[in-house]
Parts: sequence; structure tokens; C-alpha cells
Amino acid sequence: VLTTSSGNHAQAVALAARLHGTTAVVLMPEDAPANKRAATEGYGAEVVTFDRYTTDREELTAQVAEERGLPVLHAYDDPHVIAGQGTVALELLEDAGDLDVLLVCLGGGGLIAGCSLTAKALNPNLAVVGVEPAERPAARRALEAGEPVKVPVARTIADGQQTASIGRRNHALIAEHVDMVVGVPDDAIVDAMTFLFERVKTVVEPSGASALAALLSGQVDAEGRRVGVTLSGGNVDAARFASLVSRAAR
Amino acid sequence: VLTTSSGNHAQAVALAARLHGTTAVVLMPEDAPANKRAATEGYGAEVVTFDRYTTDREELTAQVAEERGLPVLHAYDDPHVIAGQGTVALELLEDAGDLDVLLVCLGGGGLIAGCSLTAKALNPNLAVVGVEPAERPAARRALEAGEPVKVPVARTIADGQQTASIGRRNHALIAEHVDMVVGVPDDAIVDAMTFLFERVKTVVEPSGASALAALLSGQVDAEGRRVGVTLSGGNVDAARFASLVSRAAR
Repeated sequence: VLTTSSGNHAQAVALAARLHGTTAVVLMPEDAPANKRAATEGYGAEVVTFDRYTTDREELTAQVAEERGLPVLHAYDDPHVIAGQGTVALELLEDAGDLDVLLVCLGGGGLIAGCSLTAKALNPNLAVVGVEPAERPAARRALEAGEPVKVPVARTIADGQQTASIGRRNHALIAEHVDMVVGVPDDAIVDAMTFLFERVKTVVEPSGASALAALLSGQVDAEGRRVGVTLSGGNVDAARFASLVSRAAR
Repeated sequence: VLTTSSGNHAQAVALAARLHGTTAVVLMPEDAPANKRAATEGYGAEVVTFDRYTTDREELTAQVAEERGLPVLHAYDDPHVIAGQGTVALELLEDAGDLDVLLVCLGGGGLIAGCSLTAKALNPNLAVVGVEPAERPAARRALEAGEPVKVPVARTIADGQQTASIGRRNHALIAEHVDMVVGVPDDAIVDAMTFLFERVKTVVEPSGASALAALLSGQVDAEGRRVGVTLSGGNVDAARFASLVSRAAR
């Protein structure tokens, strides 16, 4: 099986492939965090790198799939991936009880497509807010245009949210179920990571802390409302985590 | 109220004092982590520092208590503190079900006195193992001597376990309920912190990771046994955490 991922989906596919007695080939940006690459290879996958700023990842994926005769397992534009990621909201609502607002990190749109589908099915009044990097307005542009739009690959610390566009299935579900998409600057993401380090004692990677960043930076009206937040991913190099959090810590 | 603590108990006392409309004075080693001091002051306590390598903390505490006319709330040699800390083992056993072995971090002996009392009351066959820094053998010496023994203040990264002796009440309970005490070197503690960072995505301070360090470094026979481990404390400066974990990370 072939997949293209900045690292978290890659690890999942690599492990799943091994458990099923097959092998995975993963196309990964060459500047992906070293520990994501190491973990993916540790699960037995073959990693092939590319330059995310100059390569069209959909074209590259199609080309490698044909060359090697491998089926493609898309990281977010796939109904099974979306359904699986929707269980995040299901578990959150089961544990936390009903919410007024749910903030979800948004890269390619897999997590929020699934979570918004689940959340609205359980409570149509629950406001679902997607959060993407300020510098990568792919979901906001798509909602304006009524279809996925390719934006320039953003320079942001949120390496899991640098994909140039959201997926077609993801867009359809986001347009139907998501109430609002906001953008957060890198500074707000670092502040959220630092808050999680200091107060929650939890390690979250930049992309995974973006939803909390929107809440803490006041982009979402939380006054008197029960707010759920996804923390999706903790794959960050120790040295990088250190430099980000040390800089921001008081 | 007056207490002496390297930082975690200090924060608890500071907050409890404020909630009860009174104030706390905390004697703290001058080299305590900056964020422990900041948090303690943030809860409204007055912090007075001392040099842990040259000062007898029991004498200093008695002297300040008399000068200021303050009652002393001991950080570990106190029946209420021990009882409160015993709820850690109670909650762990309620959540995890029965265990074969319980590893508990051991500084002054409050946590292990309470946890061993609870654990043995619930299951007399549960083996309780105390873990202290290799360089600070206060509990091991006390068990040999049959009473608390004062050892030189250790140079160790485990700042919450540098106290020169365990308490009298703690010793009595440890002698009765603890099966074994082992010492772990700083390197093993850093490896445990790094494992927690990379795999559990959790921030644990050196003293709080000492019990896991004993397990991961093979000091306790865990083969085929259900093992519980306390992770007690996450108050570590971002810069210090970073330098420890970055160095050890692969």
C-alpha cells in the first residue's frame, strides 16, 4: 500500500500494514520531523521523501502508485479514514457529556470531516469550528469557492497542516457540517503548546495544538459555554519541542 | 502556616492556605526549579529560600516557626499528609484493578508511606517497592539501621528527593509495609523522562519519573507481572526539561 503523509497517518499505515503482513511505502516531506520518520520506519515502512515546497503531492503519489503498482490509501480524502477519525468526537462526547462548541484541528480535513459528522448526528446544535494555520487558508478559501482550492504551501510550524488543499470528500462534509473555520498564527500555537506543557503536563505537536490555540487566543466565544478541543498528535522532536516551549515559557 | 518543601508540597500548602483565608510561609531550597517557586508565589505564599547543601532544614524550620509564631505543616512526616497521599494507590488500584507490584517514588517518604498502607490493606500480597535516587540512600540506610538516618545531601537531578532523611512516621510505615527500596542513577531517570515524553507524551519531573526509571532499567522483576508505577510531579522548567530530554532523545 502507498500513502503520502507528513507523519502521523504514515505511522498508522505502517503499523497497520505490518499487522496485516504486508508492507507500506510512505511518501513523506523531506523536512518532516525526524521522529515521525524514525517511527514510521520503525514500523517497517519504506519512506521516500520529497520537497513539499516544490512537489505536487497528488501528482507524485499517482506517479509512484503506477510505477510500483501499489494501491493508494489517502491520508484524509478517504471515507474509512474519515469514519475512523470521527470516533474522536464520539469518544469525547461520551466522556465529557454534551458540549456547546467543538474545536477541531484542520489540515487535509479528515479529522474535522469525521468529527463534524459525528457531532452533528448526536447534537445538531453543537457548533463545530475548524482551526487551520493562519498562513494556510485552504479550508477558508474552499468554503468561499464552494470547492477545494489549492493555496501556496505555507511556512508554519504546524507541519501536519501544510497540505496545499483539503480533500474533495472532506470539503463536502465540512461545507455541510462545520459552522466556522478560523486561522491561528504560529505564536498562538506555541503559546498553546506551552500552556499544555506547563499546566496539563502534556506534549502536543504544533498542528495538534492549533485548536486549543484558537480558544486561548480568543478567536472563539467561549464565555459560559462548554467547549471541547481536540489535541491531535504529539510527534514533535525533543529538540524542536524544547526550543519552541523554552522560548515561550515565562 | 509554615512549611518546608522543594516545591510540590509548597504549592499545595500555598493554595490550601489561600482557600482557607490565611497565608503560608514556605522555606524552599534556593536552587528549587524556578517554576515551582513562581507557582508557589502565584498562589499567594511568601517564599524564603535557603541553601540545601549547608542548612539543616529541620533546624531552620523550627527556628522560623518560633520567630514568627507559625504552626508547622510538615511536607511528609505528618499523618494527614500520609493519608492524603495514600489515595494515590487507592485511585490507581480502583482504576487498574489488582496489581502484583507497585513502584512508588520515595523522597521524604510521604507518598510511599500512604501508598504502601493503602496497598497492603487492599492486598497483602501486593509487593510495594520504593525508589529513591542512587546517590541518596536515606531510606535504604534507615531500613538497615531501624530508624531514620541522615545522609549527605545528594547531588542528583531529582530535586524532590534530595531530603537528607526520611521522616519518623514514614520510616515506621515503610519498615512495616514496603518490601524493598532500590536506588536509581540520574541517567536512568533521564531515560524514563524521555520515554514518557516520546511515547506517553507526558511531562514528568525527575523525582516523579524515578519509579518508572527503576522499572525500565530492569531493577525490578516485572516479567509476567502486573506492575503499577507512580508518576508524581510535572514541575520542571521548560529549559531544564528540554536540555535533559533533548540530550537523551535518539
